[in-house]
Amino acid sequence: MRWMRLAVMVGLACAPLQRPAAQTAPAAKPAPGLADILATSPTSEWETLDPARTLYLDLGNNRRVIMYLAPFAAPSTVANILTFAREKYWDGLAVVRSQDNYVVQWGDPNGDTPQAKSLGSVAPKLAAEFDRPISNDPAFFPLASRDAYATSVGFWNGFAAARDVSGKRQWLTHCYGAVGVGRGETADSGNGQELYIVNGHSPRHLDRNVTVVGRVVMGMEHLSSLPRGTGPLGFYDQPEQRTTIVKIRLASELPVTERLSLERLRIPSATFAAVLKNRRERKDGWYLHSPGAVDLCNTPLPVRIKKQ
Amino acid sequence: MRWMRLAVMVGLACAPLQRPAAQTAPAAKPAPGLADILATSPTSEWETLDPARTLYLDLGNNRRVIMYLAPFAAPSTVANILTFAREKYWDGLAVVRSQDNYVVQWGDPNGDTPQAKSLGSVAPKLAAEFDRPISNDPAFFPLASRDAYATSVGFWNGFAAARDVSGKRQWLTHCYGAVGVGRGETADSGNGQELYIVNGHSPRHLDRNVTVVGRVVMGMEHLSSLPRGTGPLGFYDQPEQRTTIVKIRLASELPVTERLSLERLRIPSATFAAVLKNRRERKDGWYLHSPGAVDLCNTPLPVRIKKQ
Repeated sequence: MRWMRLAVMVGLACAPLQRPAAQTAPAAKPAPGLADILATSPTSEWETLDPARTLYLDLGNNRRVIMYLAPFAAPSTVANILTFAREKYWDGLAVVRSQDNYVVQWGDPNGDTPQAKSLGSVAPKLAAEFDRPISNDPAFFPLASRDAYATSVGFWNGFAAARDVSGKRQWLTHCYGAVGVGRGETADSGNGQELYIVNGHSPRHLDRNVTVVGRVVMGMEHLSSLPRGTGPLGFYDQPEQRTTIVKIRLASELPVTERLSLERLRIPSATFAAVLKNRRERKDGWYLHSPGAVDLCNTPLPVRIKKQ
Repeated sequence: MRWMRLAVMVGLACAPLQRPAAQTAPAAKPAPGLADILATSPTSEWETLDPARTLYLDLGNNRRVIMYLAPFAAPSTVANILTFAREKYWDGLAVVRSQDNYVVQWGDPNGDTPQAKSLGSVAPKLAAEFDRPISNDPAFFPLASRDAYATSVGFWNGFAAARDVSGKRQWLTHCYGAVGVGRGETADSGNGQELYIVNGHSPRHLDRNVTVVGRVVMGMEHLSSLPRGTGPLGFYDQPEQRTTIVKIRLASELPVTERLSLERLRIPSATFAAVLKNRRERKDGWYLHSPGAVDLCNTPLPVRIKKQ
């Protein structure tokens, strides 16, 4: 069961079928699919997720969402987020917004009112971290793909990213599952207290307008399936529609018995090259037309539970 | 309330906010936003949706999903779908699959078993309608945007589409909310009995691999928020997890009192040009960085309830 959930998590192959796979007629043996490629990948091509960068969002009823943070892309904002988690700021707050084909967002329902929860010891204002100077430390791996929004796209330390080569800036992109920082009208108004997750077609027009701090690596379905809010911008207009946050914790602050040991595929690696080839060619069975391309936000970034 | 629901339906502006809009400080008057552009658009730039191409999916509990079909793109398959609807084939069947960041799909849970529901008078096999010869009847309006999967993209009779100019073929694309036809291993195995809807980042690699027959124009949130299936490919592995289809009907076969009168923005039109400009520039308030682009599947295709 865990492995099936992995398949969902990384958005594997998965054709729209006339019938469940088990009921289709056996076909001639196809080229290896993504699951085969990952299953035969050497252990050395996987790296353990750092528990000090891994955030667990607990929505109750066994709904756990796991995010991996990107301090290299947004050091000050991620530092704030770590502090919010350590000081248990979000515990008891709520998912306040779920807008179809856009974002799901949490924070303090009492927002700017006198009843707002104290921000504790975090920095209440931060300079924006929408983008960074171009750098290959950590590595940027280019993806050969035409992109509507940027002249260069790829993977920056394993996260989907884009570059403005002439302007010498790079940034994490708003792909499905990206974790961004809600803000007000000014650039410095996003301190990390309200985070949102992309739940639809990747809204890349948000790139460089907000700070992206990471991505969901497991449990996305618990956020994406929440009822959509019927207020403006998908905010819940009835308090009882909100989902309460039981707690948000850093994995490193949880007992080992409550953590999952996760690993991600290294980029670059021979296996990742095979993943890209597979996605572009789609010679693994059901496909009749080879797409010949894979776009940035359709590229799988595999994460799995470590084999013991 | 209806107009707010419209906003959700067409995926309007909608920044990830630090606070609900009502609580943010007033700003200098921005350039007109999408809502302003649509509200001041002349009536002549809108066309009524044809009730004979409009499909109502009723999931009970006031959950109604409205789809607009594209017979010009897939005439035989759409003809089958109209027959399925007229003969009430889908009534009592179910949503059998909900795969995160991919598709939600309905059909006969008994599939290929002896208990399968009769297909009635439809054609059980159809030649594939994955793409069509390039034609400007009806009109194809090109979108100036780099696209990973096709050398030319735009809007074909108001639907998101792409072209292979050298191969002289065009097709409807798998954008969020697209309605596609499930099939088995062979091209002719999709007769329309199982339809799926894109519920995540647009899986454009499915283009030309399945027949796209239309798109959701209202009520998408009732499909996208369904719990994800925990079986392979997001199929529900427990029958009780499925959502029963109360009925699927053509609007033209419903009493007028049970229909919504809908209209869509014409493409091309002066208003649609203003919509594209607005999306590319984003000078309407919250945005600090102009994206300078809008991709095919992020382009709003406005549909609204007709003013009486």
